[in-house]
Amino acid sequence: MKIGIVGCAGRMGRMLINAVLDTEGCALSGGTERLGSDSLDDDMGELVGRDHAGAVIESDAKALFKRSDAIIDFTAPAATLAHAALAAEFGTVLVVGTTGMSPEDEIALAKAAERCAIVYAPNFSVGVNLLMALTERAAAILADDYDIEIVEMHHRHKVDAPSGTALGLGRSAAKGRDVALDSVWRKSRDGHTGARPKGEIGFATLRGGDVVGDHTVMFAAEGERVELTHKASSRAVFAKGAVRAALWAKTQKPGLYSMRDVLGL
Amino acid sequence: MKIGIVGCAGRMGRMLINAVLDTEGCALSGGTERLGSDSLDDDMGELVGRDHAGAVIESDAKALFKRSDAIIDFTAPAATLAHAALAAEFGTVLVVGTTGMSPEDEIALAKAAERCAIVYAPNFSVGVNLLMALTERAAAILADDYDIEIVEMHHRHKVDAPSGTALGLGRSAAKGRDVALDSVWRKSRDGHTGARPKGEIGFATLRGGDVVGDHTVMFAAEGERVELTHKASSRAVFAKGAVRAALWAKTQKPGLYSMRDVLGL
Amino acid sequence: MKIGIVGCAGRMGRMLINAVLDTEGCALSGGTERLGSDSLDDDMGELVGRDHAGAVIESDAKALFKRSDAIIDFTAPAATLAHAALAAEFGTVLVVGTTGMSPEDEIALAKAAERCAIVYAPNFSVGVNLLMALTERAAAILADDYDIEIVEMHHRHKVDAPSGTALGLGRSAAKGRDVALDSVWRKSRDGHTGARPKGEIGFATLRGGDVVGDHTVMFAAEGERVELTHKASSRAVFAKGAVRAALWAKTQKPGLYSMRDVLGL
Amino acid sequence: MKIGIVGCAGRMGRMLINAVLDTEGCALSGGTERLGSDSLDDDMGELVGRDHAGAVIESDAKALFKRSDAIIDFTAPAATLAHAALAAEFGTVLVVGTTGMSPEDEIALAKAAERCAIVYAPNFSVGVNLLMALTERAAAILADDYDIEIVEMHHRHKVDAPSGTALGLGRSAAKGRDVALDSVWRKSRDGHTGARPKGEIGFATLRGGDVVGDHTVMFAAEGERVELTHKASSRAVFAKGAVRAALWAKTQKPGLYSMRDVLGL
Repeated sequence: MKIGIVGCAGRMGRMLINAVLDTEGCALSGGTERLGSDSLDDDMGELVGRDHAGAVIESDAKALFKRSDAIIDFTAPAATLAHAALAAEFGTVLVVGTTGMSPEDEIALAKAAERCAIVYAPNFSVGVNLLMALTERAAAILADDYDIEIVEMHHRHKVDAPSGTALGLGRSAAKGRDVALDSVWRKSRDGHTGARPKGEIGFATLRGGDVVGDHTVMFAAEGERVELTHKASSRAVFAKGAVRAALWAKTQKPGLYSMRDVLGL
Repeated sequence: MKIGIVGCAGRMGRMLINAVLDTEGCALSGGTERLGSDSLDDDMGELVGRDHAGAVIESDAKALFKRSDAIIDFTAPAATLAHAALAAEFGTVLVVGTTGMSPEDEIALAKAAERCAIVYAPNFSVGVNLLMALTERAAAILADDYDIEIVEMHHRHKVDAPSGTALGLGRSAAKGRDVALDSVWRKSRDGHTGARPKGEIGFATLRGGDVVGDHTVMFAAEGERVELTHKASSRAVFAKGAVRAALWAKTQKPGLYSMRDVLGL
Repeated sequence: MKIGIVGCAGRMGRMLINAVLDTEGCALSGGTERLGSDSLDDDMGELVGRDHAGAVIESDAKALFKRSDAIIDFTAPAATLAHAALAAEFGTVLVVGTTGMSPEDEIALAKAAERCAIVYAPNFSVGVNLLMALTERAAAILADDYDIEIVEMHHRHKVDAPSGTALGLGRSAAKGRDVALDSVWRKSRDGHTGARPKGEIGFATLRGGDVVGDHTVMFAAEGERVELTHKASSRAVFAKGAVRAALWAKTQKPGLYSMRDVLGL
Repeated sequence: MKIGIVGCAGRMGRMLINAVLDTEGCALSGGTERLGSDSLDDDMGELVGRDHAGAVIESDAKALFKRSDAIIDFTAPAATLAHAALAAEFGTVLVVGTTGMSPEDEIALAKAAERCAIVYAPNFSVGVNLLMALTERAAAILADDYDIEIVEMHHRHKVDAPSGTALGLGRSAAKGRDVALDSVWRKSRDGHTGARPKGEIGFATLRGGDVVGDHTVMFAAEGERVELTHKASSRAVFAKGAVRAALWAKTQKPGLYSMRDVLGL
C-alpha cells in the first residue's frame, strides 16, 4: 500500500514517516511541505535519520494524491479541506487527524467522503478509542447515583483546556446516559460551587512537565468508585494508529469513518 | 418481597440487615444464628441500632426458608450447601456470597439450582462486576502486545493473596483472550525473573491499613497504557448488590446465575 | 486528662467523643450543645451507642471550661471566639478545628493564646500534616523547572473549591519556594489558557461519591514526576489527631500552635 | 569542565553524550569502547546525530582519564573497578552508575575514593533521590501502625524484581524506622500468607509495556494513607543527574559520595 504524508516535515509528520516505514505492507509514496520549506527535495527516510527511502518531499499535493493509495493528514483545517477535495477527485483514502475543525469544515469533509473513504478522529491511539467505548458502556450501565468526573494532564506547552480527548470522553459518557454533554458539563470549579448536582459531568485539568497525555474517567458513588484511565507515553502511538486506519480504509466503501469503526469498537 | 438472612449477626449479616431495611419493596422475614448465639431471639432491627423490625433471630433455618421469598447467604461452604438443599425444597431464591467453595461444592450448588433460582458471585458490587465485563472486552480487543497486569490492595487482616476478586478479574481477562488463566498467570515476582513472556497475566498484591479493596487491571504496550480500576470504600456496596440480586432473581426461572446476569453485563 | 467537647452532638462531635473514650489517659469532662437541643442532659457515652460515660451534655460552656484540662472545638467562628475567651480566663488548653475563620478572628485567637495553649489547624490528621511538611521540603529542593500542581477530590456534598487542605498544601509549596501563594496560584483552567507560566501553582478539583478526601501534590519536569498523596478513608483520623493535640498541649506554655508543632514536623 | 564517557556507544552512553553537550560549562574530552567495536574512531557528536564534537571514541581508557576532569561510568562491575584505579591514579572525578556491584566491589571503590572524588548511586534522578529522603523522613515520623508497602512497575524487558530503586526506597524506609531492611522485608505474596505482621515492609512488582520506571511508597493506617510516588518518563533524567554529579564533585575533596550528597538532601 502506497501512503503519502502531507505536511511531512513537522514533528507529527516525522513520526508518521517512521510509522509507515515500520509497518509491513506499506511504502511511502511521497510527502508535501509548503513552498519555501527547507525540506523540499529531501528524501523522507534521510529526513528522519534512516536509510534512503526513495520518496521525496515536494510542494505539489495533487501529484501525490494521484499516485497514492492513501494520504495521512495532520495539518490544519484549511489545508485539510483542500486535501479532501483531492481525495474525492482521485478516490484516495484520507486519514485526518487535524484538530480545530469547525462544524462547517466537518460538513465539507462529510461531503468529500461521498466519493472516497475518510477516517477522521480526534485521537488515533487504540487505547483512547477503547477507553471511549468502555466509558460509553459504563455510563449506560451505572445509574446517575454514580458521579462522572474526567481529569486530564498534559505537558506545560498545551494551550487549551480541557483537552479534545477529555471532551471526547465526556461525549462518550453523555451518550451512554443519553444526554447532550453541553447540557450537563462543568468544565472547572473555583470558589463557592454549591453541592454537586446529580447528573453533572465534571472536568479537571492539570498541566506540567512533559506529560504526553493522561486521562481518567471516574464513576464515584456511595461506597465505590470505578476509574478508567489512559496514559500515553509516546506520540508514536498516534502515528501507528493513523497507519492502521489507512490499511483498514483501503477495503472500505466511500464514507466518513471514525477510529472506533476502524477498531470495530 | 420477604427476605431472610442466614448467619445474620456477623459483620456482613448486619450490613445485609441494613441493606434490606433500606430497600423499597423489601421486608425482613427473619434471620438465623447458630444454637447458643447471644443474638437468638433478638429483633433484627434493634440488633443494628435501628427501630424494632418485627423480625426475630432464630436457629431454625427450615422455617425461615419456608416463609421467605429469598434468602441471602454469606456464611461458609458446608452451611451454604445445607441452605441450598432447603432452597431447592421450597423453591426459595438463594443469593450466595460464600467464598472458598470447592469445585465439588459448586457442582452441588448447580444441582440445587435445577429447582430454584440461585445467584452465586465472588463479589456483589456493581462496580466490580462492571469492571469484569470491561476487562473481558478490553482483553478481547487489545492484542497480546498489550501486557496484562493486575494489582490489588486490601487491609492488613486479609490472609490470602491474590484476592478472589483479583483472580476473577484475571479470569475475565483470560476469557477475553480465549486462554485458561492458570496457563498464563504469574502470581508474584521475586529475584531473577527473566524478561516478561508475551501473553502472561501478572498479579501483584499489597496489604496495609484499612483498605476495603482496590483493584486495577493494566494493559501496557509500547507507547500507551489502559488501566481499569475499582475502589471500594464501604462493604455496604456488597450488601446492596446482594439485595439487588434477590430482587432480580425473584422473576427468574430456576438456574444458577452470576452477578453479571443480574446486571445484564 | 479531662477533655470537654463543645458542640458535641454533631457528626464531628460524636467522632470526638469516641476518640476521647478510645484514648488511654483521657476522660470526658462533659460537652455542650445549644439551648433547645434534643441532646441536652443526654449521657455522652450513650449518645454514641456505647456504655454510660458519666458525662452529660449541657448548655453552659463556662462551667465546662472551668472543670476541664482541655476543650476541643470544631464549631463555627463566632462560637470559637467566645470559647477562646473562656480558655484564656481559666487557662484551659483549647484545640480548634473550626474553619472559615477570618484574619481578624485569627488575631483574636492569637490574643487569647497569650494566656493559654491553643492548637489551631485546618486539618488534624497526621498524614496531611506530614504531607505539608514534605511538600514544603520538596518545593524548596526542586527548582522551578518542576511544575507544581495540586489535585483534590471530595464527596458530592462539599460546597467550596479548592478544599482548605488543598490551599494549605499550596501554601506549603509556596513557602518552600519563598513566594506568596496568591501571587502564583491558578485555581482552575477552562478554555484558551495559553502555555503554563513558569512558577505557577495550579489547582484542580474533583467532586463525587462519598470520597472523604484525596489530595495529591505533583512536581512535573522534563523526564520525571514526583507525586505526594494523602487519602483519608475515615473522618475518625481528624478526631484522633485533635485528641493527640490536646495531650501534647497540656505540657506547653501559653501560645498559638499548629498541628505541625504537635507532630514535631 | 572536560568530561569523558567510558562505554559511550551503548544506549546509556549516547544519552550521556547528549547530556554533556547540553550542559553549559561542560565539554566532551572523549569516550571509550572495547576493542573491535564498530564505533571506534567515530566522532561522539556525529554518533548521536548532532554536529561534529571534536571528541573521538577510542579504546584506551588510560589516556582518556589523564586528559579529563571527570569520567562518567555506567558500565559493568569489573570495568568500573579498573576505571576506579585509573581515577585514583590521576585524581580524576568518577561518577559511577554501574549496578550489580558486590559488597567487595564497593569496598574496592571506597578504597579508590581515598585519592579522588567518586559519586556512586543506584539512581541519578533528582526525583528518586528526593523520594528516598522524603521516605526516610516519613518512616521516622509515622509509627508502625502505618504499614509500609512499595510497588514498582518497569518495562517488559527488565529481568529482576524488585528493582534496585525499589530496594533503595525500602532501605530508606527501614533507616527511618531504625531497622535493617532484610529483617522486615516481604518481597512478594502468593497463597495463604496470614495476616500482615506489624513492621513488615512489603514489595510488589509489575512488568509491562515500555514503562521507564514508576515507584510508589505507601504508608497505610486506619483511616488514612500517605503515598510518595516517582514516575520517570525518560532515561535522560539519569544522564542529566550524572552530569550534575560530575560538576558538583569537581569542587569536593577525595571521598565516596552519594547522589543525596550531591543534591544536599
